Amino acid sequence: MTNPMSLTEFQSIRDYFSKQGIQRSEVELSIGDDCALLSVPGGKSLAISVDVLASGVHFPEHTSPEDIGYKSLAVSLSDLAAMGAEPAWVTLAITLPVMEETWLQGFCRGFFALADRYNVQLVGGDTTHGPLVITTQVGGYVAKNMALRRSEAQPGDLVFVTGVIGEANIGLKLLQKNLELPPQYDYLSDKLIERLNRPTPRVEIGQELLGIATAAIDVSDGLAADLNHILESSQVGARLDVHKLPVSECLPAIFDRIGGWGQPLAAGDDYEILFTAPERAQSTLQEIAKVHNCAITCIGQIEPEPGLRCYSESTLLELSSMGYEHFKESQNNNT
Amino acid sequence: MTNPMSLTEFQSIRDYFSKQGIQRSEVELSIGDDCALLSVPGGKSLAISVDVLASGVHFPEHTSPEDIGYKSLAVSLSDLAAMGAEPAWVTLAITLPVMEETWLQGFCRGFFALADRYNVQLVGGDTTHGPLVITTQVGGYVAKNMALRRSEAQPGDLVFVTGVIGEANIGLKLLQKNLELPPQYDYLSDKLIERLNRPTPRVEIGQELLGIATAAIDVSDGLAADLNHILESSQVGARLDVHKLPVSECLPAIFDRIGGWGQPLAAGDDYEILFTAPERAQSTLQEIAKVHNCAITCIGQIEPEPGLRCYSESTLLELSSMGYEHFKESQNNNT
Repeated sequence: MTNPMSLTEFQSIRDYFSKQGIQRSEVELSIGDDCALLSVPGGKSLAISVDVLASGVHFPEHTSPEDIGYKSLAVSLSDLAAMGAEPAWVTLAITLPVMEETWLQGFCRGFFALADRYNVQLVGGDTTHGPLVITTQVGGYVAKNMALRRSEAQPGDLVFVTGVIGEANIGLKLLQKNLELPPQYDYLSDKLIERLNRPTPRVEIGQELLGIATAAIDVSDGLAADLNHILESSQVGARLDVHKLPVSECLPAIFDRIGGWGQPLAAGDDYEILFTAPERAQSTLQEIAKVHNCAITCIGQIEPEPGLRCYSESTLLELSSMGYEHFKESQNNNT
Repeated sequence: MTNPMSLTEFQSIRDYFSKQGIQRSEVELSIGDDCALLSVPGGKSLAISVDVLASGVHFPEHTSPEDIGYKSLAVSLSDLAAMGAEPAWVTLAITLPVMEETWLQGFCRGFFALADRYNVQLVGGDTTHGPLVITTQVGGYVAKNMALRRSEAQPGDLVFVTGVIGEANIGLKLLQKNLELPPQYDYLSDKLIERLNRPTPRVEIGQELLGIATAAIDVSDGLAADLNHILESSQVGARLDVHKLPVSECLPAIFDRIGGWGQPLAAGDDYEILFTAPERAQSTLQEIAKVHNCAITCIGQIEPEPGLRCYSESTLLELSSMGYEHFKESQNNNT
């Protein structure tokens, strides 16, 4: 129980995290006391979520500190987005093997860049010596009784997803040298790796979905697994048309090598929003997609019969025959 | 980025943490969605605090899972106590090297025993494969503008501390076989080790201090370091009388071997409340001490001149000559 980092080093770490410029009006007391104190705005519920990122599990070991900082916050903001909540504050707990100034500077640059973009105030934290593990907890606000839950999908609702699915997993395979893209797709590789390291939490779209979506979740465990969470919570089933999945333009060229339809169905880490909404919402959703410059694609429909059924054209696919098993070990395991 | 624990194992971990019976009325949505949803009672501020416990840093490697579970929550509740807040909810993030059923059962037993005692609901979490690191974040409520901050100590106020100081550190030394008690004090050793492994967060006393204490902090870094936090935040100084420190009855017998006055001044992990209050509060404080069966001892006085001055009778002690340096590496490093 001795601590290889000195008090001066810890003080210097604290100094890094006290430098953020944001001061939200409802934060009564921030870093520097036993607790932070906050007022939750009237008529709002507080939404909170906690995420752990461990080196070698949630990001490859050689990920840049800037990307780690960015991603630590992004995955938590994605949970708020999936509830339709407006991000407000965050606490940050880090165990660090060594105190390295350039690492901390990079981490803060990535973390604060995203925090500043969404006006998120860092209100507390804890720094400890240990293996690299980062825990972020975010708080946000959503009008009472309006939050997007997993449990309200209705038979007849359509199933939608934002953005493109499976790109982060292709990026990971490129980084791990487990995959090479055909030369004509080389130009995509930086973008695919960025999709892994700097996912875009769909914060604005999440808030736009309030009053429109019936159920929502963010795609962290994989599309099929996350859709199953909605289906189980809502006690319904769904039909999913794999040919409608919004996938990377390079997928057809690597389809067999990457596991076929199992890849976009099971790959995690995309942090898109998967949601259900009644058919009549379609034109509104296309407006939202346009405003936020992000595809919103209908990929299936909710049915009364429990279970997830995936179709290719009119053929029912067996998940087990699609390389799904290969992918099903989850990287993210939120309670 | 492969995960040695299977989905089934993660599911089983989740099941453990879903078993708590407590359901608070203001928790609108608990474990099982992207976020938890809460209403903060009207007229109250939300107090939040985050703490990381790493194996080998905050508890010796062979600590029982039950004690680890208990202590993970206790250190966070202690932060709420030091603000005078009423505990309400907690989130729990764990990285675990292996999924071991008996370990999890023990951890939950310790964690939920304390949670149930204070009516604290577990509202969210995240479980990941990795080295053993536990992050707890607690939320509690305190009447607006009433919280006990570090920054309001006034010259003339007396300095008080609850309970006994330095016992957890003696317990640690016993566990590490760095110290043997003289035979006549053998009967104390279990209690001293329990003070390390199962600290008592002073939740009730913290709330009683609202409107009485001018400043407060919990003793996690060590009495002198934590008093310095109050002095710096309040821009005042203090005189401290070491002979008034409430120390273990065995301290005189091991005084020289353990570092003299440096030990109670610098030893951390006691989780007592250190606070300042005007002189007229003394009789009320003795009433509170009686009701809660916990000593509240006056150990010094706030002075206008910055800095901490420790006296033995009327002799000014040099912290550097008291073995203080030996202890100053902190085990707890809250931002």
